[in-house]
Amino acid sequence: MSFTLAEARAADAADPLRPLRARFHLPEGLIYLDGNSLGPLPKAVAARLGEVVTEEWGEGLIRSWNDRDWIGAPQRIGAMIAPLIGARPHEVIVADSTSVNLFKLLVAAARLSDRGTLLSEAGNFHTDLHIASGAADLLGMNLEIAPRAEVEARIGADTALLLLTHVHYKSAERFDMARVTARAREAGARTIWDLSHSAGAVPLDLNGAGAELAIGCGYKYLNGGPGAPAFLYVAEHLQEALVSPLRGWMGHAEPFAFTDDYCPAAGIDRMLAGTPPILALAALECALEAFEGVTLARLWSKANALFDVFHGLVEQNCPELVCITPRLPEQRGSHISFRHPHAFEICQALIAAGVIGDFRAPDVVRFGLTPLYLGFEDLWQAVDRLKKIMAGETWREPRFAVRGKVT
Amino acid sequence: MSFTLAEARAADAADPLRPLRARFHLPEGLIYLDGNSLGPLPKAVAARLGEVVTEEWGEGLIRSWNDRDWIGAPQRIGAMIAPLIGARPHEVIVADSTSVNLFKLLVAAARLSDRGTLLSEAGNFHTDLHIASGAADLLGMNLEIAPRAEVEARIGADTALLLLTHVHYKSAERFDMARVTARAREAGARTIWDLSHSAGAVPLDLNGAGAELAIGCGYKYLNGGPGAPAFLYVAEHLQEALVSPLRGWMGHAEPFAFTDDYCPAAGIDRMLAGTPPILALAALECALEAFEGVTLARLWSKANALFDVFHGLVEQNCPELVCITPRLPEQRGSHISFRHPHAFEICQALIAAGVIGDFRAPDVVRFGLTPLYLGFEDLWQAVDRLKKIMAGETWREPRFAVRGKVT
Repeated sequence: MSFTLAEARAADAADPLRPLRARFHLPEGLIYLDGNSLGPLPKAVAARLGEVVTEEWGEGLIRSWNDRDWIGAPQRIGAMIAPLIGARPHEVIVADSTSVNLFKLLVAAARLSDRGTLLSEAGNFHTDLHIASGAADLLGMNLEIAPRAEVEARIGADTALLLLTHVHYKSAERFDMARVTARAREAGARTIWDLSHSAGAVPLDLNGAGAELAIGCGYKYLNGGPGAPAFLYVAEHLQEALVSPLRGWMGHAEPFAFTDDYCPAAGIDRMLAGTPPILALAALECALEAFEGVTLARLWSKANALFDVFHGLVEQNCPELVCITPRLPEQRGSHISFRHPHAFEICQALIAAGVIGDFRAPDVVRFGLTPLYLGFEDLWQAVDRLKKIMAGETWREPRFAVRGKVT
Repeated sequence: MSFTLAEARAADAADPLRPLRARFHLPEGLIYLDGNSLGPLPKAVAARLGEVVTEEWGEGLIRSWNDRDWIGAPQRIGAMIAPLIGARPHEVIVADSTSVNLFKLLVAAARLSDRGTLLSEAGNFHTDLHIASGAADLLGMNLEIAPRAEVEARIGADTALLLLTHVHYKSAERFDMARVTARAREAGARTIWDLSHSAGAVPLDLNGAGAELAIGCGYKYLNGGPGAPAFLYVAEHLQEALVSPLRGWMGHAEPFAFTDDYCPAAGIDRMLAGTPPILALAALECALEAFEGVTLARLWSKANALFDVFHGLVEQNCPELVCITPRLPEQRGSHISFRHPHAFEICQALIAAGVIGDFRAPDVVRFGLTPLYLGFEDLWQAVDRLKKIMAGETWREPRFAVRGKVT
């Protein structure tokens, strides 16, 4: 390979972010290229969660809602995410799942408009489309699903909301947030951005891009743990206008006044619903500390170097794999995907060889190139194994095909 | 006191459930009468959560969704709750928060009816009323809130759904589930039961009572930890008719087919929305193991003995406190509440004396008499301290009044 193992090791040695790797638990002998699906365990989480369980819950019991500020966790952790997405601290909260948060924003924002159409992209991450179809159904609206290339042109006089995923979960293609948001606004529509495949890896500037509404995932690049709570962003100027369809007590102006009447809390707090999931929030909060001292620019610069190395090595050594991710940094996120008719079997053979990427139906194998903890040697070793798999055709063995498609 | 410390100790020694206390961490010197608000830490949880973090997440990474059956957690844990509420295993799932689950059921069930009114109780737990007001607003329905004594009589020709909390969070008054459900059904209405203050303490037989829809809390008597995921019950015969308004991918028939079109999963799975919160689910699952080998009848029998002792001791020693909880077991849950104009200050003085109950605005002090881990001596000691507080009037000290009402 043109980029040699020695060069990979030299690149790791010269990498200013290299020390961050020590903040994560990476299993011995495994190359984990799936941090865009489930981030690895930040080492500090086990002890922190142990403390929350034994001390805060075990000893503090109900008192910890105040004494350990459990009650403030959604806002406190939201404020930690804010700088990663270019928002102000009071514009972000952590709560519920991405799906549930999307529902809140879709319904609340749609009701600010007298237009009848929600617009999204065909092949958008499906939970977004399903949640949107449920919201449209409830509101008597139309859900229009347009091919990616036509989405912008379809923004019309009846478009109330445009729902887009900033970085596509499969291809990693990225929308130009500022341009699309402005285009929608000019046409009288608001945009909701799903940042699930962006936050924590791709540079984001929601305020600068004029973004008003966004949601995102806590367990991908933010490394918050399996099924971690999600986040929700509402630009300050819009906060008082939105009323959540999920009027839970934590979004009430006075949750502990126990009144029959609903009165939404000020600001973004009104987007809370039920009791905050403290154990899960504690893991996410601790995980976010792994970003301490890291600038998004540094992260993105390394992500690009990783991308170029991986792309180059695969192109050279495994030409049967067709890259579907744009090469230009501003057009993509931090993962890379390839098409192959036997993508499923290749993915399984890679896993057997100690390289974890993932398969996305029907024919895509996807690799997360996460700059916080991956090194250049990881990528060299991964492609070395991939090359052997492709050359040796072990992936055609029946054991890898037996399960068929992951469904 | 007529029930002496020696008698309390003898009652503990004779209590067949006494060994269960060892399954919980109860802080030294503290008497915890708030397990109906946040259950104490089951001892096994810390180690179990540690294992999930370091092994399942840390080592297994994304593979644990299949290898450790993370993906099956909502159903698996639902099946553990089923026997505690008189349901069949496939009728219960664990997901989201109580508020979010209530929204799903309210909207889905309301849409099965062509009637225009949701009916609930004034002074019901407020998140239920708020969520109902949000659902009614979205659906163009009317939310009727009737005084408790009038609720049944108000079920009318326009009532689509009756939303009631089985055991009242403040007074502990209990509805006769079978009778009220039948009464509503005869009038053509469905009933949604909130079991938050029942499940895990009060005997429940949802199937036997003809209950069709219910939700409940994971962090009270089920001891699942602060903000634990909630549960949701749908009687088998109704499952295929309901479509969740929150159409997340986990409720899709084929979550990993990544299709644009929504097709609800079979059975209760369609009530799932986003990615299951694995860490929080693991704590709840482990906590439910503390019910192993315990029958609901045994639990309830002990709860009643605890109630009678506590009620008797307070009546005799602190006559200024007015009990608002019915004495008859079939009319109440497993907590007991008293009214006093200085309830807040009394509650604070009790906490300072090592007895944790809780205050509910404007004038109620509430004590959870949880049979899994409380003993008779706990109650004797608690009332002994309460008696001294009431007699000594230390609760009038400014330090206890300084914070005013908890709002």
